[in-house]
Amino acid sequence: MTEFEMAGLTPQHFLWEVKDRIATVRLNRPERKNPLSFESYAELRDTFRKLVYATDVDVVVFASNQGNFCSGGDVHEIIGPLTKMNMKELLAFTRMTGDLVKAMIGCGKPIISAVDGICVGAGAIVAMASDLRVATPDAKCAFLFTRVGLAGCDMGACAMLPRIIGQGRAAELLYTGRVMSADEGERWGFWNALHAAEALEAEAMKLAGRIAAGPTFAHGITKTQINQEWNMGLEQAIEAEAQAQAICMQTQDFVRAYNAFVAKEKPVFEGN
Amino acid sequence: MTEFEMAGLTPQHFLWEVKDRIATVRLNRPERKNPLSFESYAELRDTFRKLVYATDVDVVVFASNQGNFCSGGDVHEIIGPLTKMNMKELLAFTRMTGDLVKAMIGCGKPIISAVDGICVGAGAIVAMASDLRVATPDAKCAFLFTRVGLAGCDMGACAMLPRIIGQGRAAELLYTGRVMSADEGERWGFWNALHAAEALEAEAMKLAGRIAAGPTFAHGITKTQINQEWNMGLEQAIEAEAQAQAICMQTQDFVRAYNAFVAKEKPVFEGN
Amino acid sequence: MTEFEMAGLTPQHFLWEVKDRIATVRLNRPERKNPLSFESYAELRDTFRKLVYATDVDVVVFASNQGNFCSGGDVHEIIGPLTKMNMKELLAFTRMTGDLVKAMIGCGKPIISAVDGICVGAGAIVAMASDLRVATPDAKCAFLFTRVGLAGCDMGACAMLPRIIGQGRAAELLYTGRVMSADEGERWGFWNALHAAEALEAEAMKLAGRIAAGPTFAHGITKTQINQEWNMGLEQAIEAEAQAQAICMQTQDFVRAYNAFVAKEKPVFEGN
Repeated sequence: MTEFEMAGLTPQHFLWEVKDRIATVRLNRPERKNPLSFESYAELRDTFRKLVYATDVDVVVFASNQGNFCSGGDVHEIIGPLTKMNMKELLAFTRMTGDLVKAMIGCGKPIISAVDGICVGAGAIVAMASDLRVATPDAKCAFLFTRVGLAGCDMGACAMLPRIIGQGRAAELLYTGRVMSADEGERWGFWNALHAAEALEAEAMKLAGRIAAGPTFAHGITKTQINQEWNMGLEQAIEAEAQAQAICMQTQDFVRAYNAFVAKEKPVFEGN
Repeated sequence: MTEFEMAGLTPQHFLWEVKDRIATVRLNRPERKNPLSFESYAELRDTFRKLVYATDVDVVVFASNQGNFCSGGDVHEIIGPLTKMNMKELLAFTRMTGDLVKAMIGCGKPIISAVDGICVGAGAIVAMASDLRVATPDAKCAFLFTRVGLAGCDMGACAMLPRIIGQGRAAELLYTGRVMSADEGERWGFWNALHAAEALEAEAMKLAGRIAAGPTFAHGITKTQINQEWNMGLEQAIEAEAQAQAICMQTQDFVRAYNAFVAKEKPVFEGN
Repeated sequence: MTEFEMAGLTPQHFLWEVKDRIATVRLNRPERKNPLSFESYAELRDTFRKLVYATDVDVVVFASNQGNFCSGGDVHEIIGPLTKMNMKELLAFTRMTGDLVKAMIGCGKPIISAVDGICVGAGAIVAMASDLRVATPDAKCAFLFTRVGLAGCDMGACAMLPRIIGQGRAAELLYTGRVMSADEGERWGFWNALHAAEALEAEAMKLAGRIAAGPTFAHGITKTQINQEWNMGLEQAIEAEAQAQAICMQTQDFVRAYNAFVAKEKPVFEGN
């Protein structure tokens, strides 16, 4: 296993910062509401894959930029070329986009999306594939694949969205491509909380800080289990958790918590 | 594969109309709040099975009739005879009712239930097995199997209802058989929207029209995926979507959407 | 199969009462908000295992005691010793706690948690693993494993909690360990209803009585199916329900319901 310091990363296609064990990702074409390109897709995928080995990052915040989160795959740079590809090339593309979601799910660190403004298409998928989601009252989230002639099953949406907001609401968003308002998203459990635009990033960082101050090795186990138990029987899931939690009970963080409790102090976790 | 024009259908046990590529189904015993009979169950099953091959239908609206949706299996025509059947006959019946749900799920076209008044027993199942559901503030939906001495696991209810409204709320409805009010149903994600009785059908047709104007081949893929990905691991679901979306990227509807965007026009989809 | 009268049970580590075919469980260390100990875990597990064969119990109410439900695993009696155990011993413990949830799921009778005050850690799990949940406006429910250095995947939480309240809300509770307020819990579908503290137990008993007056054999089938169909494809679930419901159609309770309907009477079910 290769350990890796993520602070040294210098991505070409998005902004990247590591501070206090929290990495911030930010798409950076604000004049077009931060679309994705072939290059940024691939570089994001590679970055989330590296995070597995990161020694200096415990939580990721996927942030907005100048009032918008992400406008999805760029029409000119992505959709145009796709209309001219053969099946082999198309499948290579859809697998690459799916690999970004797999990399986000598999990176071992909780991801918080902090969404202002436009959050559509692949942008909505990035938010959906995050572990937690906060937004502003102006956030406009749409799984608009149907509006470009495609199916709602993009990058895992038919599997993941129903688990977050329920099957009926997910079906409506995926068949119509309509915007889910921020208020709907909060009522339906898509957004964990709404914050004013000027407070959004501070609130996301506060939440990230709270999680980063927790037992981060155990958080990684939580992330693994919450994603892979959907496809287990209840009895198998319970056995899987018995094993997973027994692993966590051998960490020093568990001892630290106990000792702090006995000493009537607040535990300081170290992630091991 | 046999292509089929659904407009030519003349069902004996329910009303049927095809207009603007939208089929409307309507049970037609309003004096008894539209119960199901052995015959209407079987004919509905056969109709939804034929829809797979329909060339003239893109969306189905399952409508109400004179203020009620469906009062479920008729007590005299269904429940009475069932109490006298042997196991072989009972299983043939429960499989037939399950086959209606399987046919609805497998028909390849989105189904919208438009529910006014009574929507109970098998009627609640028909609504549940639809892709989208709209209702009036007077809709009374009850999974009342327990009140006739049966279990809540009827026609897929224990599998599907928790995915729409959550496990705890589903359990309450299935153990008690109580009515879910329209307001609860909207809050819980069972109803996609509530409309006044006089507006219900127009709103359902507007939603159907919006979906029928979309990329209907891709909608069929969405329907397949949202139903079969529940039982896949996330990684398998993401791969399945990469393949499914690559198929959709080879449709002309995808090209039509791109061309329309470049021309700053609204795309006209043709479902291929 | 051994039949068993649960009224004769004299548990050492919790209160137990059987009346009108409803068993009431109540932890009994109210001065410490009713923590669990190694002994009460094991005795609860054994009791729910016996319930499968109970002839005198149809519903279980897991009640609060002097204003609190359960404060989870006792810090001194459980967490302290765990910090000193080897892996074999730890896994034996986590499996025992998981076995309590498996026994609750497998006991064949609906379980209603009636929660006032503190409901945290393993206490939150007991509520989650119940079929129905009612609470007071003062109920404070927290899956606080992360606060003692552990993962959120405890006793099935990563599998069950997302199915009740949705994946996004579950993730927030499991990563942060924060308290879910009673109001949030009701909005999110965790609590089926909120009642004032002085009415809580009466309301829980009323709900229990309503369920106990239903077709209890069929309820047991509902409980089996709603728990095991999560890991089936929709088509397999529908076939499983066709079989399960056909079984229920051969019970006398089904005939009783039909006869009562014809006679315009209220059916009296006998659970067979």
